[in-house]
Amino acid sequence: MRPLIALDWGTSSLRGARFAGDGTVAEERSFSRGSLSVPPGGFPAVFAEHFGDWMAAPGALCLIAGMAGSQQGWLETPYCPCPAGFEEITQRLAWVEPGRIAIVPGLSCEVDGVPDVMRGEETQVFGALQLQAMRDGTFVLPGTHSKWVQVRAGRIESFATLMTGEFYALLRRHSILARTLPAEEAELPDAGSVDLNNDAFDAGVALALRGASLLHTVFSVRSLALFKRLQPSQGPSYLSGLVIGEELRSRSLARGSEVVVVGDAGLTGRYARALAQCGVGAQCLGAQATWRGLHEIAARITA
Amino acid sequence: MRPLIALDWGTSSLRGARFAGDGTVAEERSFSRGSLSVPPGGFPAVFAEHFGDWMAAPGALCLIAGMAGSQQGWLETPYCPCPAGFEEITQRLAWVEPGRIAIVPGLSCEVDGVPDVMRGEETQVFGALQLQAMRDGTFVLPGTHSKWVQVRAGRIESFATLMTGEFYALLRRHSILARTLPAEEAELPDAGSVDLNNDAFDAGVALALRGASLLHTVFSVRSLALFKRLQPSQGPSYLSGLVIGEELRSRSLARGSEVVVVGDAGLTGRYARALAQCGVGAQCLGAQATWRGLHEIAARITA
Repeated sequence: MRPLIALDWGTSSLRGARFAGDGTVAEERSFSRGSLSVPPGGFPAVFAEHFGDWMAAPGALCLIAGMAGSQQGWLETPYCPCPAGFEEITQRLAWVEPGRIAIVPGLSCEVDGVPDVMRGEETQVFGALQLQAMRDGTFVLPGTHSKWVQVRAGRIESFATLMTGEFYALLRRHSILARTLPAEEAELPDAGSVDLNNDAFDAGVALALRGASLLHTVFSVRSLALFKRLQPSQGPSYLSGLVIGEELRSRSLARGSEVVVVGDAGLTGRYARALAQCGVGAQCLGAQATWRGLHEIAARITA
Repeated sequence: MRPLIALDWGTSSLRGARFAGDGTVAEERSFSRGSLSVPPGGFPAVFAEHFGDWMAAPGALCLIAGMAGSQQGWLETPYCPCPAGFEEITQRLAWVEPGRIAIVPGLSCEVDGVPDVMRGEETQVFGALQLQAMRDGTFVLPGTHSKWVQVRAGRIESFATLMTGEFYALLRRHSILARTLPAEEAELPDAGSVDLNNDAFDAGVALALRGASLLHTVFSVRSLALFKRLQPSQGPSYLSGLVIGEELRSRSLARGSEVVVVGDAGLTGRYARALAQCGVGAQCLGAQATWRGLHEIAARITA
């Protein structure tokens, strides 16, 4: 196989991996040059600056997943409609430089007359399928915008976006609840980056699973604090439990079932903890899923 | 009855009414001096500045509802636990100046082990009971923090806070959705202040009533815009329909039932429209409910 450079170019970060000839990752790089930070027309220069040396290898092939294919990205890459598997997205790669640099299309689906979209997570799911040697299952990709993905016979049938991490950040930073929570320090905008108070987190999940609206349950962060039944230091974990619990509640998960959770260790661990309260098992995978997914697409092109 | 001055001192605004001897409102005043804008210890001066002339009337009595009774208010007034009627709150008035200036206590309740609180809305409900000659019913006070209040035999049995208006403002201003919505201009932080696009609002309500999580439904503001199935100008109305629809869905309202909606005309009209989609009737009342509630409390003191 040709030398492969794999990129995950998201909204807020740019990560790259260089593969060795044996299919393992030889080197990784990470930059805070997410697509939102790149001005129109600026993608080739950012790419050359950070990966030009890797691309100098004779016959190098670069595959890019993520927001580089959005309207505001490097090259707008139309969404591939579901159901979609390796074959569909490989056929619809958008070539920035023919035969040399390609962007993986995101997916779209339509449920009950409402469209949904993703860019980048499809590649993680395809990689996770390979890593787990699975053809069917439910995949959860938690984050700012969590994705719940249904896979059947190796193809993504449908998926749903839940803005869990973004709701957490909005409530944590900009709502009235921020007044009763401690200062934010280095917290990141997804719900997995705060040190977890397990009891408070579990209590939040438990309340959310009882089924009241999120519009109501989050007010308990304030009311419990007013009566000194929630310490300020517990507040962020409790709020995280409320939003993640709401996400799980809405998925109507069967007790005894199992899902695959793909993401960074802090966040997947938190989801596994909440899923356990629903009686659902979790297999957790990390960033290697994206690299594996891009490697598999490359193998199909260069075969 | 003694000359009565009624104040509604909320977080963001201060309103006052002077009653004539016949029990009608002779004069109203409104100031942008909500309790959040008053420094600690500054309440007497703000009060004297805006209402000193009214209080100069011999025998004047002032009753204050709202956040003036909070921890950061004029005089912390402990919450009165539910169930509570006129009798309970009249007994628990907090006198700033004995016999002359009193703050009406807010209410607390506990549902499924979680406390809830309100300050000011209890007075609106008591006033609405008088205005409607009712003893039982469901009262909705929409706004930044909507209150749903259950009344039986003239007493508030329980209530629930839903942060509908605040969620709307957070999503409208600070979320990724803000990028696909038009500039905000003079919109206020409750969901009733934008000019309504009825079709978009109804579509948002309809989607919310189908029961998916708010974490998911709000993403459709973005996905519909991506596919040009929602115009930017329709976005705020659609989003308003999603959050108000979620509020109504969570209340499990019986078709054919009726609720009383208390608030400003734009917002109560919007709720009546959404309630109609649930098959629920709405009687709408305005600010007169607060004045009537305070007048009734005064009548019990001075009787």
